[in-house]
Amino acid sequence: MSATISPLAPKEVPSLPPIEGVRIATAAAGIKYKGRTDLMAMVFDKGTAVAGVFTRSKCPSAPVDLCRENLAGGKARILVVNSGNANAFTGSKGVTTTSATAKAAARAVGAKPGKVFLASTGVIGEPLDPGKIIPHLDDMVARAEANAWDEAGRAIMTTDTYPKYATATAMLEGVKVTINGIAKGAGMIAPDMATMLSFVATDAPISSAALQDLLGREVKSTFNAVTVDSDTSTSDTLLLFATGAAAKRGAPHIEKAGDRRLGGFVRAMRSVLSSLARQVVRDGEGARKEIAITVTGAKSAASAKRIALSIANSPLVKTAVAGEDANWGRVVMAVGKAGEPADRDRLSVWFGDIRVAHHGERDPSYSEAATSAYMKKDEIAIRADIGLGKGAATVWTCDLTKDYVAINGDYRS
Amino acid sequence: MSATISPLAPKEVPSLPPIEGVRIATAAAGIKYKGRTDLMAMVFDKGTAVAGVFTRSKCPSAPVDLCRENLAGGKARILVVNSGNANAFTGSKGVTTTSATAKAAARAVGAKPGKVFLASTGVIGEPLDPGKIIPHLDDMVARAEANAWDEAGRAIMTTDTYPKYATATAMLEGVKVTINGIAKGAGMIAPDMATMLSFVATDAPISSAALQDLLGREVKSTFNAVTVDSDTSTSDTLLLFATGAAAKRGAPHIEKAGDRRLGGFVRAMRSVLSSLARQVVRDGEGARKEIAITVTGAKSAASAKRIALSIANSPLVKTAVAGEDANWGRVVMAVGKAGEPADRDRLSVWFGDIRVAHHGERDPSYSEAATSAYMKKDEIAIRADIGLGKGAATVWTCDLTKDYVAINGDYRS
Repeated sequence: MSATISPLAPKEVPSLPPIEGVRIATAAAGIKYKGRTDLMAMVFDKGTAVAGVFTRSKCPSAPVDLCRENLAGGKARILVVNSGNANAFTGSKGVTTTSATAKAAARAVGAKPGKVFLASTGVIGEPLDPGKIIPHLDDMVARAEANAWDEAGRAIMTTDTYPKYATATAMLEGVKVTINGIAKGAGMIAPDMATMLSFVATDAPISSAALQDLLGREVKSTFNAVTVDSDTSTSDTLLLFATGAAAKRGAPHIEKAGDRRLGGFVRAMRSVLSSLARQVVRDGEGARKEIAITVTGAKSAASAKRIALSIANSPLVKTAVAGEDANWGRVVMAVGKAGEPADRDRLSVWFGDIRVAHHGERDPSYSEAATSAYMKKDEIAIRADIGLGKGAATVWTCDLTKDYVAINGDYRS
Repeated sequence: MSATISPLAPKEVPSLPPIEGVRIATAAAGIKYKGRTDLMAMVFDKGTAVAGVFTRSKCPSAPVDLCRENLAGGKARILVVNSGNANAFTGSKGVTTTSATAKAAARAVGAKPGKVFLASTGVIGEPLDPGKIIPHLDDMVARAEANAWDEAGRAIMTTDTYPKYATATAMLEGVKVTINGIAKGAGMIAPDMATMLSFVATDAPISSAALQDLLGREVKSTFNAVTVDSDTSTSDTLLLFATGAAAKRGAPHIEKAGDRRLGGFVRAMRSVLSSLARQVVRDGEGARKEIAITVTGAKSAASAKRIALSIANSPLVKTAVAGEDANWGRVVMAVGKAGEPADRDRLSVWFGDIRVAHHGERDPSYSEAATSAYMKKDEIAIRADIGLGKGAATVWTCDLTKDYVAINGDYRS
């Protein structure tokens, strides 16, 4: 947790209601941080379905390996998350720790170890002592309660400057269901390597297969459409739990992601994922501005997204926005380097509603004064129209400031 | 040109000898800069062969388009380069400028426009007035002289903090041939967009086909193995000219890149390209340290290079080096995100000769004190051994400092 809160932090923090079938406890285990909670257990009623998406890193952390393995069963009884140590690049010691922790957590809830999910975030390369975690588990399960989402969001923070919450409701055949989510950001500070973690729970009765399909689809335009610095953590984890408790109130059991009754649920889920993903970007290290980059007119949606990510990950574009400079030449450069079909002479670029370049040249009607005023805002929209097709995509990022370099480049103490 | 010279500037500047068949003139054309030269013409004797490699940007500048077109003829009589304006993203006006300039330059040397090569570097999106360049050409051709390589290197600078020179000789069947090269770096400053430009000339009698093959091969481990910030200019241009004048002294005419007599020449050419490429990196904006990243044990050489570039372009690795932090966790992260075959538990990482991680864990014998001392050097070597095969590659980059953000993010005046 940082002393300085990001200027892009939400002005209002939502209060997360209970999700029937979910109980939460936190503890101060002293893994690395002092005087704060760093351990969180989320206990699920029997029958809870689970879905997950993870880092694409070829060097994932030990907890990611465990989650991937247990996801095959499709059921969850407990999630245990610690901050302060990522249990990544810890070799066989890392696996010993996840096995021992999963076994103890399973015993605490009276389930099989295959129904345990783990996530760890913090320093990497440092062995994580399971003896710091296991002694807390029985007590945490015993005192877990429904109204502890706020504490859960705080316990998983590392270099985040604010906790990240989102909640939404939807009607499922006339029955209200709720979706809660928490996340922690990709803040990284030497020698820590933090990670994006997000945990979402609902009382809707949806099968794990349907959940996995929904999550895989909705993550594309939410968590997989944000970038802070193009660096991919070893530990990124997004888990979605469905307790099914709303079935008691008459909600239908949903077996397939294509079920038409899911319309409202999908919209609510998308709003939760999108809110959390953007909160992560807005808490990127040193961020002073959020940048939404939209590419239109590309050959395909996939091509549009690759071009948008090329712009979003360009240090020159990100430093220009930090400097409140509508430097469209750098946007052109980033379009050009994306390796996707593009034609210089059909390209147009907007900052907000101001078209600064059109058909391969500076727009003659472009007003420097209006553009300078626009660039002072803390939410900047950049649009590039490629002029070749109908593919479109939006991604979100933040600016690159001296504080990013300071946070990530300061000498290790 | 910057007031502050990079701390990584060469301690000794080589004096470039004449290349028979090459004459050079510079002029102060007042395109953007005041009180300095910004125009350079290199005049070649008849019969000079040319080869070139260019930016892979899909939005290249108008001069890049012209060079690509004229390269088909394989012959060059004059190269005209200006700094201060990149003539990029200038639409049809850009093409009008390159056509008019090429026509005038061709007339000045009594050749066809297809033997003219142009390069421009500086601000983008601003039309380049050929009327600033054309009136100088006749006079420049008339007064061009052999001993002006030093002036040539200075006239093409933009935000470079020092001019970049390299020279080497080789024996071709007992006859000495010389290779000279100049370059300007990828410094970029708002609202400018600078560019990597490099021009290399030799008196060796080598056909354009052979030159192009050699250049395409040697650029891989030199100019295409350096990165400052992963951003690709619209204008990157590397041209290689061979006047063939050494034939008068008995050097053989070489028609094919595979000719065994070229051994010494290729080594000399590689040393010139490598020196210039590394000088560009060492003059990266805000650079305080040069970083050589070597990947060994990858599945293939191409895989090794992709992993090395993933490490070299990682903002987290680059900020860690700026902070003199041997943060091997970030190297692991960058290996993992490269998308290439890797196995966490076979991975080893070195900073200099110090192995900090081995077989997927922190090396137990790793000394923090020795590593901290090593990280204070201004040339840092990072090696990652993937442990899967025999593929190896080295790339060069620089650290990411607050000065990079300041140079690229300062408000436009």
